[in-house]
Amino acid sequence: MIVAMLPTIAWEDDAVVMVDQRKLPANEVYVRCRSAHDVAKAIRTMVIRGAPAIGVAAAFGIALGMTRSKATGTRQFAAEFQKTCDLMAATRPTAVNLFWAIERMKRAFADAAHAGESVEQLKVRLTVEARRMHDEDVASCRTIGKLGGELVADGARILTHCNAGALATAGYGTALGVIRGAVEAGKRVTVLADETRPFLQGARLTAWELVKDGIDTTVITDNMAGALMLGGHVDIVVVGADRIAANGDTANKIGTYSVAVLAREHGLPFYVAAPWSTVDLATPDGSHIPIEERSAREVTHVGSNQLAAQGALIRNPAFDVTPHRYITAIVTDRGVVRSPFEHNLRELSDSPEPQPV
Amino acid sequence: MIVAMLPTIAWEDDAVVMVDQRKLPANEVYVRCRSAHDVAKAIRTMVIRGAPAIGVAAAFGIALGMTRSKATGTRQFAAEFQKTCDLMAATRPTAVNLFWAIERMKRAFADAAHAGESVEQLKVRLTVEARRMHDEDVASCRTIGKLGGELVADGARILTHCNAGALATAGYGTALGVIRGAVEAGKRVTVLADETRPFLQGARLTAWELVKDGIDTTVITDNMAGALMLGGHVDIVVVGADRIAANGDTANKIGTYSVAVLAREHGLPFYVAAPWSTVDLATPDGSHIPIEERSAREVTHVGSNQLAAQGALIRNPAFDVTPHRYITAIVTDRGVVRSPFEHNLRELSDSPEPQPV
Repeated sequence: MIVAMLPTIAWEDDAVVMVDQRKLPANEVYVRCRSAHDVAKAIRTMVIRGAPAIGVAAAFGIALGMTRSKATGTRQFAAEFQKTCDLMAATRPTAVNLFWAIERMKRAFADAAHAGESVEQLKVRLTVEARRMHDEDVASCRTIGKLGGELVADGARILTHCNAGALATAGYGTALGVIRGAVEAGKRVTVLADETRPFLQGARLTAWELVKDGIDTTVITDNMAGALMLGGHVDIVVVGADRIAANGDTANKIGTYSVAVLAREHGLPFYVAAPWSTVDLATPDGSHIPIEERSAREVTHVGSNQLAAQGALIRNPAFDVTPHRYITAIVTDRGVVRSPFEHNLRELSDSPEPQPV
Repeated sequence: MIVAMLPTIAWEDDAVVMVDQRKLPANEVYVRCRSAHDVAKAIRTMVIRGAPAIGVAAAFGIALGMTRSKATGTRQFAAEFQKTCDLMAATRPTAVNLFWAIERMKRAFADAAHAGESVEQLKVRLTVEARRMHDEDVASCRTIGKLGGELVADGARILTHCNAGALATAGYGTALGVIRGAVEAGKRVTVLADETRPFLQGARLTAWELVKDGIDTTVITDNMAGALMLGGHVDIVVVGADRIAANGDTANKIGTYSVAVLAREHGLPFYVAAPWSTVDLATPDGSHIPIEERSAREVTHVGSNQLAAQGALIRNPAFDVTPHRYITAIVTDRGVVRSPFEHNLRELSDSPEPQPV
């Protein structure tokens, strides 16, 4: 079986190109971002989404913005760089990969500036760093897939929520990376994909990716997961993450917490899969993770179809936090982390580089 | 505060008239059913839905079909009556109120036939019985509202799933009857309405009803309930029922079970509200309740908008079963039933008539 690499984001000469994830699966439309502002808008409006993917997008956006700079001196260039970083940081609050990517670009900039590089040299340095982050993200996903695939039994019926796939990363995926890793290891699996209201990343994106890969995939509405678990139709749960706090509490797409509670109620393992860039040791626990509230219209409408009665209030928190006690293990590119998470995450953070597998 | 009675179903001369619940809240369209077949189709296609409402619809449908009969003798009339009952029984499998209503029409028919009534007298008898069931259903809901309203504290934040409102009954509602009962008793409440995919009865119908009544209502996607409970934003859960087995296991709209698990995880009371016609002592437990699987299109599309990727399989069980251990109490028009449900339901069934309150 060929496990396809789907196009999520690419650097093309003077543009950052992304598939418009709002239009999938009906239409495969590519958006060419020609400025840092274009990229920031694409992140904010969810042309591209998924924590690792928006990290890479932010890095590309910064590199793109700076290569187009007309600054003649490094001081002016540095000021523009700071503004471009701020622009990216203001797009979405929850996924830490975004801030991690910006910090990494800042570090690359500082190192090069410290070495006395010229504006032209700095431009090259930023572009190289962004492209490296893209490639590293794919490599991380493959490692996650290999490590996580080992946790999946032959014949497993895997439930996943939202899209933590190739489209949520530079390629291959985290939670879907685990599924792909299991398939590449020769295991037969079937997948239950929560549709994941309101943005329907599960029905639209996860199903699209997995069907392309020839993996048996069934879409369900989010509220079916419990009944299917009670009926004995689920063996394990694998989801992605937008931010993992120092104690293992994990922010992910709204509804993940409900799935975690249901998994525990039915004695099912609940795995979180994420690159190390999603781990945020500076955030002590889930209560400190900012949760983005998005527009009511995402809930009230699908296209031009109005779903909710006029006059009702709407809540639209885009994420929730799953306390670490519901998590069986966190699969990262540095290794599989189990309880006690605080200790084990801290220990892994001291290992400087991802372990090759 | 005026707690409005919404139009669900009415008998008008030679037609059964229903508001088309598929088109609410965008359009308030009324469907005139001029034959039993029209009514059966309306039930099957969910022009009307909600266990008590489809019970009343079936009774009206039978009465309508029989008043239009051209049978000249009681034997022919009886054969047509049996066929009309079979037609109604084949519409939807899960809600027991439908079968309860058909049985009650059969009993009325048998009593009248036994008394030697003519075809014309039988027609009147069936019409009177159906109209009585309609009126009794409203009365049941009001009793449920009064009894259930006492369980609601002033200031309560109530989560409900699907629509167990005026639209799901002949009027006033069961779960929403409890909310209305609390409001009529002078309590201030706010409501969180799960949108209830795939048919969106919560977003479309519950929100519409409650907004009309001036009750503060917030629509959320189904997958937000857990996070809001964890955040301390929910005090109690009240839902309706499609069938309550002898041991208290309760079939209700898909997703109810997940809500029940979440309620218990957060120490919240979980109430089921239903007229006594929903209690099915002939079904020993939830495993014997037939669960309707509806068309994939309800999940894959909203209007003409395709939500799910082509090639994915779809599950669409319309109901799930909540085991009785998750249920704090069942509020019926005969009284509030608590654990041990099997004993207490059996005992209440021996009290022949609803208790006036």
